[in-house]
Amino acid sequence: MEYYLDLKKIRESKPLIHHITNYVVMNDSANITLALGASPIMAHALEELEDLISMADTLYLNIGTLDTDWVNSMIRAGKLAEKYNVPVLLDPVGMGASELRNNTVRNFLESFGVSVIKGNGGEMLSLYGINGGVKGVDSLRGATLEIATGIAEKYNTTAVITGKIDFISDSKRRAKIENGSEMFQYITGSGCMLGSVISSFIGVNRDVFIASIEGLLTFDIAGEIAGKKSAGPASFRENLMDEIYNFNEENYRFAKVTVYG
Amino acid sequence: MEYYLDLKKIRESKPLIHHITNYVVMNDSANITLALGASPIMAHALEELEDLISMADTLYLNIGTLDTDWVNSMIRAGKLAEKYNVPVLLDPVGMGASELRNNTVRNFLESFGVSVIKGNGGEMLSLYGINGGVKGVDSLRGATLEIATGIAEKYNTTAVITGKIDFISDSKRRAKIENGSEMFQYITGSGCMLGSVISSFIGVNRDVFIASIEGLLTFDIAGEIAGKKSAGPASFRENLMDEIYNFNEENYRFAKVTVYG
Amino acid sequence: MEYYLDLKKIRESKPLIHHITNYVVMNDSANITLALGASPIMAHALEELEDLISMADTLYLNIGTLDTDWVNSMIRAGKLAEKYNVPVLLDPVGMGASELRNNTVRNFLESFGVSVIKGNGGEMLSLYGINGGVKGVDSLRGATLEIATGIAEKYNTTAVITGKIDFISDSKRRAKIENGSEMFQYITGSGCMLGSVISSFIGVNRDVFIASIEGLLTFDIAGEIAGKKSAGPASFRENLMDEIYNFNEENYRFAKVTVYG
Repeated sequence: MEYYLDLKKIRESKPLIHHITNYVVMNDSANITLALGASPIMAHALEELEDLISMADTLYLNIGTLDTDWVNSMIRAGKLAEKYNVPVLLDPVGMGASELRNNTVRNFLESFGVSVIKGNGGEMLSLYGINGGVKGVDSLRGATLEIATGIAEKYNTTAVITGKIDFISDSKRRAKIENGSEMFQYITGSGCMLGSVISSFIGVNRDVFIASIEGLLTFDIAGEIAGKKSAGPASFRENLMDEIYNFNEENYRFAKVTVYG
Repeated sequence: MEYYLDLKKIRESKPLIHHITNYVVMNDSANITLALGASPIMAHALEELEDLISMADTLYLNIGTLDTDWVNSMIRAGKLAEKYNVPVLLDPVGMGASELRNNTVRNFLESFGVSVIKGNGGEMLSLYGINGGVKGVDSLRGATLEIATGIAEKYNTTAVITGKIDFISDSKRRAKIENGSEMFQYITGSGCMLGSVISSFIGVNRDVFIASIEGLLTFDIAGEIAGKKSAGPASFRENLMDEIYNFNEENYRFAKVTVYG
Repeated sequence: MEYYLDLKKIRESKPLIHHITNYVVMNDSANITLALGASPIMAHALEELEDLISMADTLYLNIGTLDTDWVNSMIRAGKLAEKYNVPVLLDPVGMGASELRNNTVRNFLESFGVSVIKGNGGEMLSLYGINGGVKGVDSLRGATLEIATGIAEKYNTTAVITGKIDFISDSKRRAKIENGSEMFQYITGSGCMLGSVISSFIGVNRDVFIASIEGLLTFDIAGEIAGKKSAGPASFRENLMDEIYNFNEENYRFAKVTVYG
């Protein structure tokens, strides 16, 4: 299976995924990146970003617990990523929940190129300019393949909208994925861990539309398998990590993915 | 059972619990809030606090890894909570261990209303003005229902003193709870997770004396059940989270609670 | 077994281990310290460092997610540790990966005494002045007992170089340890957790060469046992913590340690 070739590449080449992410999920994101076979680094000091990002394979930015200092680090990191041709995945956590988050995301999109924007329905609706989709950081309303395509066109990026059904578009190509588990909503940072997983696939495959599909499938199917053997959210999280580590070619036969045009 | 009605309410209405807490426990607190059925948000940037706290059902403040910036965020958040009638639960972690912590807690109590103050014996003794009860952030000495009542009167709040026996007082009503597990002391953030759980009950029941009892019972009984099936502290933490997620009406039959006057 | 006497001392006297460490591992480090039987505290505010460090048994410094504010806290903490005769364990995470890290570690070593420096091969080679050993925060090249001895002499400290084989030297005495598990590389913060464990042994044994051996053996053997019963990295981490908690005298019979004159 083609997806598996990129997972093997991750395990062999161990791409370096530079994270600037939120305090809540740093540990989970580092652990899932390692479980997948890639190499996470978490660093935000302005003085060392150039040394580190020049070595990175992907830059993952996540505004979950943003403040001025961290936003400045992310902007500098984004510009350095552009300089060194490092693809950027942006996770606009809580977009729509505060003006600060809205302004920060717009500022990012004007300051440096973003290869993939990934968010839940409410966040991505807000990004597209449709209000009322966000309560706190949780998504309330559905979103569709059309919104994903609209965001991809508007921001010259690949858009990933997560939910019961995931939608992916790079404006020319579109896909939907129907794997996953109800348990994802009962653990914190499932979206953030997914961001790390997609970033790892981007680290070995510069076709970020395909890399996003691969990341989503791997994460969602691992969650599906984990969900069936877990007594609750904490054992689910543990099993999810272990399933990611043990993920094999056969698991991709559960893929429910539709790719359009 | 009446306690269960509020747990059901949490699961149905998913109250939004705004956390400004310490780095060590953010992940655990977010996860236990989700496992219980409520919705956690963690954000501290001054610029977005009004947007977020105006939507919150409870504000949970915890000074575990405090510094000037975070203290300023907590003060602003506390004042906004007052403006928007959002109840505040304050966790004075390490009270008594440093002058900074003592001054910060006093500053909070003079700056905004606090619905519940929850700490261990040493912290609460220090708050009440009795020194020598704290070594680091761990409690050394016992404390009693009288101290809880004294704190409740002095600060016009509901006081929760945790330990082998938990004491609760809103000055008029008093209660003690004798559930729990020895294993709580071998995991970090058990008090902080309890803070998230009580905050979630406050999110659906504005009688914070009752909500505190419900939170304590749910957390302590889940711990009791988890303790019996765990090989050590890490499996205890996992089982605790899973038990919170699976908590049902029957579990409250283990409640060892005495309510006075 | 002599090692076990110090583990018993930890469990009885619960030494206070002051951590100033990185965001990614704070929770894991606190939990493993508690599982071992010691008492962790995590605090970085300049205003309270003297109150807290004057009570501490060991100071553990880790630069994993350093920035200016945290570096300033660590320097102040290091100087206070010197003032109060508290031994310092320094974990130069990512040494060699950026100039900022290199300069920070050198600055520390000029500003206060360090009892133990512990790092992986790449970090310790960089510290010794041999470049090219670091990719991100992971070690690429081997290092030897000679490097450990060289660092110990150069910086008047005890050097611990971790890897498949661990090397320890205080310049006069040298040792190597061949315990461990392949799984350590698939979880984040294994080196940081080890730092907490060694710091706890230093908290009860001021012969830091011996305390380092005891910490390494306890951590590595617990990992060996955990590795044999784990389905992946997340269950490994859980089992590791539980094994640390349940560690008994018999487990030290697995020790593969060689001490040289």
